Amino acid sequence: MKAFACIAAAATLLALAAPASAQFAKPEDAIKYRQSALSVMGTHFGRLGAMANGRVPFDAKVAADNGEIVAAMAKLPWAGFGAGTDKGGNTKAKPEIWTEQAKFKEHSDKLQVETTKLAAASKTGSLDSLKTAFAATADTCKACHDAFRNK
Amino acid sequence: MKAFACIAAAATLLALAAPASAQFAKPEDAIKYRQSALSVMGTHFGRLGAMANGRVPFDAKVAADNGEIVAAMAKLPWAGFGAGTDKGGNTKAKPEIWTEQAKFKEHSDKLQVETTKLAAASKTGSLDSLKTAFAATADTCKACHDAFRNK
Repeated sequence: MKAFACIAAAATLLALAAPASAQFAKPEDAIKYRQSALSVMGTHFGRLGAMANGRVPFDAKVAADNGEIVAAMAKLPWAGFGAGTDKGGNTKAKPEIWTEQAKFKEHSDKLQVETTKLAAASKTGSLDSLKTAFAATADTCKACHDAFRNK
Repeated sequence: MKAFACIAAAATLLALAAPASAQFAKPEDAIKYRQSALSVMGTHFGRLGAMANGRVPFDAKVAADNGEIVAAMAKLPWAGFGAGTDKGGNTKAKPEIWTEQAKFKEHSDKLQVETTKLAAASKTGSLDSLKTAFAATADTCKACHDAFRNK
């Protein structure tokens, strides 16, 4: 729990330290950053999914390790969605991210809540707990993608 | 310290859990993963560099937070360099990564040592400590890039 709690605190403080857009020299940099963070998160989330969906045998240690990384990574991408980063790279981000910022933040906050639960579930050694938390997190991913990401 | 120590342990265990190549369905996936992890690391490392080099004012909290993330991210990319991932995407990786694996591992291990020191230094509140650790880490990046990354 401590690892991602710490990284969460770090990410929150970073986000507060400066306007998000000021953290990147160019919109392309912010876009690359958020895509990279989401991609790393997705890789580790996919490993949990493979176990949750029975494609690979459940391994409690692998579950715990991947859950930890997913929760840590879930804190990072949001700083890359600062003002002015709607264009400038190859992005699927919808304009609504910037026109409905409060709603977008609700989604990103929810992901952090769900991945924190997922990390906790991934440490229980229970495949059923993992399945439940994985499904809840996957629903959160999908809801945000449906609202804010172009196909 | 706990955050990155934990993620380090998690990453090590993941690396031991299966051959690296088995963790990715396709070489492209491994290449994207390692590039993404290195990119996120580079972003946060760059924030430390901006302070170490005087481009932005030193902020102890921002330093500590970024150091933590750099050290955590430094554990991740190596699983993406498994057998068969020398080709398959847009990669600058030299063949020597796979023909001189022990030497490559020395470099990746060294980066993890140096970023652990960097994270510690970034928490001291001392710009001089940050500068020293940043320079040592940057040297480590460069040595590995010179040996194992095409221009």
